[in-house]
Amino acid sequence: MPKNPPTDYRPNPNLKRVRKGLVIINTGNGKGKSTAGFGMMLRAWGRGMNTMAVQFIKSEKSKYGEQMAAEKLGIEIIPSGRGFSWTSKDLSEDEAKAQHGWEIAKEKINSGEYAVILLDEITYPVMWGWIDVDEVIEVIRNKPAMLHLIITGRDADPKLIEIADLVTEMKEIKHPYADQGIPAQKGVEF
Amino acid sequence: MPKNPPTDYRPNPNLKRVRKGLVIINTGNGKGKSTAGFGMMLRAWGRGMNTMAVQFIKSEKSKYGEQMAAEKLGIEIIPSGRGFSWTSKDLSEDEAKAQHGWEIAKEKINSGEYAVILLDEITYPVMWGWIDVDEVIEVIRNKPAMLHLIITGRDADPKLIEIADLVTEMKEIKHPYADQGIPAQKGVEF
Repeated sequence: MPKNPPTDYRPNPNLKRVRKGLVIINTGNGKGKSTAGFGMMLRAWGRGMNTMAVQFIKSEKSKYGEQMAAEKLGIEIIPSGRGFSWTSKDLSEDEAKAQHGWEIAKEKINSGEYAVILLDEITYPVMWGWIDVDEVIEVIRNKPAMLHLIITGRDADPKLIEIADLVTEMKEIKHPYADQGIPAQKGVEF
Repeated sequence: MPKNPPTDYRPNPNLKRVRKGLVIINTGNGKGKSTAGFGMMLRAWGRGMNTMAVQFIKSEKSKYGEQMAAEKLGIEIIPSGRGFSWTSKDLSEDEAKAQHGWEIAKEKINSGEYAVILLDEITYPVMWGWIDVDEVIEVIRNKPAMLHLIITGRDADPKLIEIADLVTEMKEIKHPYADQGIPAQKGVEF
């Protein structure tokens, strides 16, 4: 028997098996948080399930690989941010965009039309107080039972972690920008 | 200025900017290793880049969401495993399948026809000695310069970590199987 079998491939037969829509959080300082979210959307799409995403930081002005793919697939990805606008003194427009994105997200969640919804990088506007975490929790509590909700971004609020079913920390072990001066690479990272 | 901006969105202007194909490893005991790999493939596909995957554990007998999606997209995903066959006393067939997968992978890597190749769960047959880690390193060293190579699975060999550009550990923080008796959910997890 090979050593170190991944235990999550071996279901515990003593557990009651419940099917439900999961609240999934990908957080941490490493890569792959959003990317795994898109991978989950791709799986859902592969199975003919309805899926969509709201992106809370990405701007509609840039074209990302995932947006180009989604367009080809007929999946709706709604960008509702302005990028990380470090140099802006006035962040009110960023805030308004995030709140607008949240209004769209609520509508999509409550519509009952989706099997998988990705709230990409929503942890940032929540962290910055632009979206009220208690309202997010309330929406999650009342979401359609079978809807899988994916939340990504660093520094997820402890209240979000608390309500989530599945939380993964993506942790940076080695990074090419820092170590080798390599910029983000088109096609895999954006 | 919001606190905790993700630093990887702010390029360091002092670094020499090099474009190269990255060796990317997603490891750790958490979810999202393979899923982020599929997300990267989706991005590449969205940009019209050539991409494919070899899956070293998944069996051709099962149909996974990512395989169903890939089929629809015209992306080649080659399963070359038998699942995690815990109860088998004789693992020689698993070993042969892994080695066959590796032969295919080498051919695809060396063909120069791909922008992104995913070696999904290859860390296991490497860990179990079925695929020689030094041969994998040799193939990586001589890979086409612009090819992005994604390696996933737990317990990545230190030699693989050493040669990789970008390494992320997916760490389990909260898991619905263990905590609530929820089985893997179709559409997001497989």
